[in-house]
Amino acid sequence: MKKVLIANRGEIAVRIIRACRLLNIATVAVYSTADRSALHVQLADQAVCIGPADVQHSYLNQASIIAAAEMTGADAIHPGYGFLSENAEFAQACQDAGIKFIGPGAKVIATMGEKSAARKTMIAAGVPVVPGSGNEFTTLAQGTAAAEQIGYPIMLKASAGGGGKGMRVVDSPEVFGRLFALTQSEAEHAFGDNHMYLEKYLAHPRHIEIQIAADQFGNAIAVGERDCTIQQHHQKVLEEAPAIALDEASRQKMFQISVTAAKAIHYEGVGTLEFLFDGPDHFYFMEMNTRIQVEHPITELTSGLDLVDLQLKIADGKPLAITQADVSRRGFALECRVTARTAGKIKLLHLPGGHGIRVDDALYQGYTVPANYDAMIAKIIAFGPDRQSVIREMQMTIDETVIDGIQTNLDFLMQLLAEKDFQANHTDINWLDQLTETS
Amino acid sequence: MKKVLIANRGEIAVRIIRACRLLNIATVAVYSTADRSALHVQLADQAVCIGPADVQHSYLNQASIIAAAEMTGADAIHPGYGFLSENAEFAQACQDAGIKFIGPGAKVIATMGEKSAARKTMIAAGVPVVPGSGNEFTTLAQGTAAAEQIGYPIMLKASAGGGGKGMRVVDSPEVFGRLFALTQSEAEHAFGDNHMYLEKYLAHPRHIEIQIAADQFGNAIAVGERDCTIQQHHQKVLEEAPAIALDEASRQKMFQISVTAAKAIHYEGVGTLEFLFDGPDHFYFMEMNTRIQVEHPITELTSGLDLVDLQLKIADGKPLAITQADVSRRGFALECRVTARTAGKIKLLHLPGGHGIRVDDALYQGYTVPANYDAMIAKIIAFGPDRQSVIREMQMTIDETVIDGIQTNLDFLMQLLAEKDFQANHTDINWLDQLTETS
Repeated sequence: MKKVLIANRGEIAVRIIRACRLLNIATVAVYSTADRSALHVQLADQAVCIGPADVQHSYLNQASIIAAAEMTGADAIHPGYGFLSENAEFAQACQDAGIKFIGPGAKVIATMGEKSAARKTMIAAGVPVVPGSGNEFTTLAQGTAAAEQIGYPIMLKASAGGGGKGMRVVDSPEVFGRLFALTQSEAEHAFGDNHMYLEKYLAHPRHIEIQIAADQFGNAIAVGERDCTIQQHHQKVLEEAPAIALDEASRQKMFQISVTAAKAIHYEGVGTLEFLFDGPDHFYFMEMNTRIQVEHPITELTSGLDLVDLQLKIADGKPLAITQADVSRRGFALECRVTARTAGKIKLLHLPGGHGIRVDDALYQGYTVPANYDAMIAKIIAFGPDRQSVIREMQMTIDETVIDGIQTNLDFLMQLLAEKDFQANHTDINWLDQLTETS
Repeated sequence: MKKVLIANRGEIAVRIIRACRLLNIATVAVYSTADRSALHVQLADQAVCIGPADVQHSYLNQASIIAAAEMTGADAIHPGYGFLSENAEFAQACQDAGIKFIGPGAKVIATMGEKSAARKTMIAAGVPVVPGSGNEFTTLAQGTAAAEQIGYPIMLKASAGGGGKGMRVVDSPEVFGRLFALTQSEAEHAFGDNHMYLEKYLAHPRHIEIQIAADQFGNAIAVGERDCTIQQHHQKVLEEAPAIALDEASRQKMFQISVTAAKAIHYEGVGTLEFLFDGPDHFYFMEMNTRIQVEHPITELTSGLDLVDLQLKIADGKPLAITQADVSRRGFALECRVTARTAGKIKLLHLPGGHGIRVDDALYQGYTVPANYDAMIAKIIAFGPDRQSVIREMQMTIDETVIDGIQTNLDFLMQLLAEKDFQANHTDINWLDQLTETS
């Protein structure tokens, strides 16, 4: 692999360019007309304009990107995250053009991108998923039988339901008997359909994900887990590693199951299995991300590994240089996603540094943040001995950060970090939405 | 310890302020009139002007600094490095004023600050020093006897000599017999004195130093070693950890000897024993620095420990929380000292960041670097799996760094990093001076 085109922008494009340079791989940046002065364009060895600001015609423009790779002689394309990173059609188009897509094969991407196919594949690979009745039913007897199998508490749901309507938490057979007819008749009235189904009810689930890496030779390792429970409208806001809510037995089991699954699907590259975690030994696969993730730096800091370097080497056909026994963990890392709430020119910029601090960004003083793209403009990552001191370090670090000229979420992050429940880790995936709705 | 005055400026003042904040300790900055707009002044909870630009009347002004501590109610003073950090009189003055000096006691500072006293103390503690004849002599018989004791090769020197005159490398008794009379008569002609002495000749010594930490309860650990061989006019230019030229047996022996010595002198705080290393089992104490060192970050990155945090906790009377068995090592770290070659305003500043990069500095865009102080304005530290990749990472990182408006040594650092002998680690403490003299 001698030249890699990076089909992305922003901090992840910069991150990938640096990883390529370290391996002596030449880099090609692509950019929209809105990104002419972007940092990734300045850092790459070559840069090709692939279209106008609108992503459909630039960063999602498959033909333009493949043409840019062909024109510059790039022998591989790194898709970063977002954009075309989980687009099976694009992965296939790269392969058809004789260009290595840095990630797993198109079929794996397609399977993992389709919720029910991913669920079936994972069940077949021995990965636990959120238990459900599978089949719909219409009678109490069918329902209680299914509930017994799943185990209480369960969530009773109308098949035609949605928006929180026609669903009830049921914590015993007695309650099931009392509520079934009522819920079913509500469903019939609301949706004209009396079919019901069940799902295991998770009271306070956390989002815990396992980072894996697998090569073309069937070797796979779990590099560590991340706790991404703090989400707003299903968007991750900050991430932590290790997940201190996770007991060691569950951690090891999740590692082992994830590695087994990666091998079962002949996965290639780095990837992440996302789980809901509801207490020791209660973890359930949600989905798999078949690409590098935004939050990968916290795993790099705690494991000492370079995940983008791993990606590049795996894509280049090299076997994993380490085994599971070589994977170690040290300290605690926390990442905050800094987002822009307005577009505009950064008049004064002072990013933090020093002991324990890493900033991944593509900013510079005088840079104009365009309105067209993802709002995330920087990631501040703090690393230290334990969660408490790292939270404090992060507060201190955000306090030192200056991004003048645009509005950002820095104040919001400060409020969040100061929340007692957050500091005590008394949170679940609904916590932040509930907090921000009530305040 | 509730409030600490930082009797320093620049990046180390910023480093110490951040470490205090992490421990919830209030901070007092001191500054000269030339440093009114310095970053350390902005970051501290309080700031006191202690005098004019001239260091004698500000950062070396003991009375002013102690008065500032008394005025602000600081219960401790952190001296940083340089300035008053190894001034026994100042340490004593702090103690007399009832203020904790963050470092060892005044007596230890005084002893280690005086070359011959330090040498004697270390010999008594079992630390090897560069062997020498000790006594002068005037006859061949006395000389060969002394040479046999030290072991060849030796350096034969005229007692009254200097500037490279009246000295010869001798590698056997035969050569000694041939050269003694000649060298002695040269000495007599040049200096009117025929007294001679001997020192062990080190052909290609490296500068390798051991970082130790010791508490008030007699516990001491060696945190790791650093290789600071790359020096220009006795000034360190860049530093590495671990020292890859060091064999494991010598490393362990140096650790053990340094810890024993620290205990023997009842050392308190963090400190560094500097050695010349000339091959397996050939290491010789030069001096001890009784303070935090400029190059401490590379040890922090490889050990995972926070040395300034350790300093603060030890000074606060806490026992070391870790034992020697807890000290681990991971990866490779390289620090480059960025120096200003001119004073002036920084018009454009872009410091590097991202994976594996740490920058310790006190810069900001628009900051005017004053002409009055040490030229070092930033430390760029790269961390990665091995020396080769970290050197490459450093080259890439310096390449990304922009400090416009003043002249710096960034180009010089780039030239140095590209030198074949440096990359192959074929260097000694004279290497850079020889290189820059000939080029």
